[in-house]
Amino acid sequence: MAWDPEFEVAFNPKTVAIVGAQRKPPPWGDFVANLQRAGFRGRIYPINPKAEGGEIRGLKAYPDLASVPEAIDLVIVTAPATAVPAVLEDCIAANAKNVHIFSAGFGETGEEKRIELERQIGEIANRGGLRILGPNCMGLHVPAAGLTTWDIFNPRSGPVAFLSQSGGHAGVFTGDGARFGIYFSKAVSFGNALGFDSPDFLEYLATDPETSIICMYLEGVRDGRRLTELVREINRTKPVIVWKGGLTEWGAKAAASHTGSLGGEKEIWDAFYRQTGAVRVDTLEELFDVTMTFLYLHPLPSRRIALIGAGGGNSVAGADVCAREGLELPTLSQKTLRELGSFIPPEGTIVRNPLDIGIVLRDIDLLLRTLEPVAADPGIDSIIFAMPIALVLSGMDRAAEASQDSQVLLSAMDKQVRKVLDIIIKFDHENIHHKPLILVLQPGMGPPVPGMRGRVQRELFEAKIPVYLSLERASRAMGKFIQYHEYQRKAS
Amino acid sequence: MAWDPEFEVAFNPKTVAIVGAQRKPPPWGDFVANLQRAGFRGRIYPINPKAEGGEIRGLKAYPDLASVPEAIDLVIVTAPATAVPAVLEDCIAANAKNVHIFSAGFGETGEEKRIELERQIGEIANRGGLRILGPNCMGLHVPAAGLTTWDIFNPRSGPVAFLSQSGGHAGVFTGDGARFGIYFSKAVSFGNALGFDSPDFLEYLATDPETSIICMYLEGVRDGRRLTELVREINRTKPVIVWKGGLTEWGAKAAASHTGSLGGEKEIWDAFYRQTGAVRVDTLEELFDVTMTFLYLHPLPSRRIALIGAGGGNSVAGADVCAREGLELPTLSQKTLRELGSFIPPEGTIVRNPLDIGIVLRDIDLLLRTLEPVAADPGIDSIIFAMPIALVLSGMDRAAEASQDSQVLLSAMDKQVRKVLDIIIKFDHENIHHKPLILVLQPGMGPPVPGMRGRVQRELFEAKIPVYLSLERASRAMGKFIQYHEYQRKAS
Repeated sequence: MAWDPEFEVAFNPKTVAIVGAQRKPPPWGDFVANLQRAGFRGRIYPINPKAEGGEIRGLKAYPDLASVPEAIDLVIVTAPATAVPAVLEDCIAANAKNVHIFSAGFGETGEEKRIELERQIGEIANRGGLRILGPNCMGLHVPAAGLTTWDIFNPRSGPVAFLSQSGGHAGVFTGDGARFGIYFSKAVSFGNALGFDSPDFLEYLATDPETSIICMYLEGVRDGRRLTELVREINRTKPVIVWKGGLTEWGAKAAASHTGSLGGEKEIWDAFYRQTGAVRVDTLEELFDVTMTFLYLHPLPSRRIALIGAGGGNSVAGADVCAREGLELPTLSQKTLRELGSFIPPEGTIVRNPLDIGIVLRDIDLLLRTLEPVAADPGIDSIIFAMPIALVLSGMDRAAEASQDSQVLLSAMDKQVRKVLDIIIKFDHENIHHKPLILVLQPGMGPPVPGMRGRVQRELFEAKIPVYLSLERASRAMGKFIQYHEYQRKAS
Repeated sequence: MAWDPEFEVAFNPKTVAIVGAQRKPPPWGDFVANLQRAGFRGRIYPINPKAEGGEIRGLKAYPDLASVPEAIDLVIVTAPATAVPAVLEDCIAANAKNVHIFSAGFGETGEEKRIELERQIGEIANRGGLRILGPNCMGLHVPAAGLTTWDIFNPRSGPVAFLSQSGGHAGVFTGDGARFGIYFSKAVSFGNALGFDSPDFLEYLATDPETSIICMYLEGVRDGRRLTELVREINRTKPVIVWKGGLTEWGAKAAASHTGSLGGEKEIWDAFYRQTGAVRVDTLEELFDVTMTFLYLHPLPSRRIALIGAGGGNSVAGADVCAREGLELPTLSQKTLRELGSFIPPEGTIVRNPLDIGIVLRDIDLLLRTLEPVAADPGIDSIIFAMPIALVLSGMDRAAEASQDSQVLLSAMDKQVRKVLDIIIKFDHENIHHKPLILVLQPGMGPPVPGMRGRVQRELFEAKIPVYLSLERASRAMGKFIQYHEYQRKAS
């Protein structure tokens, strides 16, 4: 099936009918309530043959689609699998052609009669010209339209689209995205992909003005050649980040039971990544990190970084970690080393690359003095600051630090964090060399300060500065980001 | 230099002299105050030529070692590098032979006159029969003796020893170990290893009855052959976990500036791991995870696990993650599947391996019913439960969940967590098949619950159940743990 632009109205529907809406709220997946909570501005029609004349979540319920008094832009089917054929016939009769089948229990079960049931609904859809999303999926999530099927909804929009065969991954990525500064144009969970498959949605996203980064979680695809061609083409202008589930023997078996996908052809997918230049991620954690990197970093001319941190052992470990992900830590120029040496004491520091300046960070004003010559160094194209939170906090007001009054302590901490953030943001926005500053929040000794991490992340993302939770994660994501741009430069 | 048992008194000294103790508290590294805070039960002698007759941290200060009225079991030298030769002469004169040189600024700087200075202190030490720890290191950390040089001290002892060329890594590993259920017999930070080197300490730990797991962070070693022989031998009875820093090009350069070590011979270290069967870790995170695994898991007869979690996409991702670390997820037996199928509904679950039973977990009592047949399955040797915290919490008292009163909500959460922990601990301790249960704390959608993670970790570690912060980390550590035992079985 090719993309059908008639389906596009479903991304911003004026009317949504929910077939199988229940009077008694289910423990989860209450689609009517979820739309209401998301502030959906269109009209919601709960459909339930037994609810005639009654209300569901305060809305008038209808016995079938045909009784709805206006055209339906999107039907969400939550009825049991065996009832789905009849519901689809109703859709055809009511001329409601955009259909999201949430219901599970089809080909993914591996049972013959369930596979037959999926084939049957495919036939009905073809005959009636239905445009099918699913089955066995969570469907559409469009923050700007207040459209979602999830219990948790973040109303803020952003330039990231997510195509996912897993509803769970789509829920976690869109639900937790904000913690990584990631906001969405739209997410599509499409499950068994009986109707539209990933290439179809790609066709749409290729020209969607609200989307500039495309993420995908795939377990299988019917037309691999078409997927490859589309990704290669789109990836030139909109980075395509692809997580392929089921690449291992055991993962492939799990994928077969999940969305009925035949995965596991590792060599084929290796070739896919090679031929398209798509950015490969292998875990949800990487999906977060890499997407955030594409959002907040401008293309870098090289792999040459300077690493600033605290501790000699950390410097060795950090250099190893960066090197394993293909980053380079060249020696700083004599001029840079001289300037740094003019105010950094030789004892307890290592003025090289990595720069071990733990002692300096107790006087946080020296951070700016450190960053400036490093950014001016012609051999360096970006700076990673592995910030030891505990150490930076230890530079706060001494009297407050010793205080038994937790309010005094918290307010002094707050002031110190504010100071650090101001220095980082000011440097990043004003440095004339345009070398990006990348933050890593390095846990130190002692208990974590509650809420501190989230706050630092939020403020820096708002300032468009990438922040990572470990140097491993930072270097891996940066390595993939740089590789993407190297690929595109070679290809063009 | 070989191990000198005369040094052993330094691990549990009755008297410690601190040369270079200052009247004005330094911003960190106040060795006198740190010993006092750690509850050191011996006598502390601050030494400072200018402090004669005065006091330092409430203790009588002495102008030199010779004036101290009793034998000194351990001298800690904090004087500047250039003053160290004279201090060592004092040590010889005072017959105080166990000397920890904290001072930095020797060979690791790469400067010729500093390299010469290190050579010179080596000569003095040899001539005077001094037993040297360091220089450029944090020295000894023995919880049972109240002996430490760090600001943060955990008084609880345990069976793990740590030998580290980096004082920072030693501080973080011992300081944060408790969060991973890891407690220490002794930790030694030995920096440039001018005197004792890692093989010397290994000789001692080999027969130390308080140590059953040995961890090491190395940047270099003088006698690689001796290290290899010792590790191969000791590793048979006490697992030796080795993190080698500086294995990459950039890491090796950093190691040279840190402890003056010549690292980087990747092939040599690959051979070291192959020949010794030492457990290889490459990051601090892995060091925590792998050590915790050796503490809390009994040897497993195979790589065959059952993975229990929530979500179809998670099952695929989880199977991939486990497979990449060499774990196996065999199909469950027909008997097991039948038993599980008798109470797990087919919709929204996948009764395979991995087991996707998200819906079931809302009724947490069903967890026990799930665990029992899985543990009885003859094809399975351990069970990983990837616990979705948010989902498990969602099973709490409904009325409380909807409450606006945060006290009511917290107390209901607490009750629910208590229930889950009780089930897990009861199952682990009572299951007649002796198949271990391994916990992974899986973050879910929505904001994390403050303090929840730490509490679950603490309680489960006390119950000797391993807990990991992600499935990636769990499978990697378990893979290495199983590999260790496979190696030992083959070797024996």
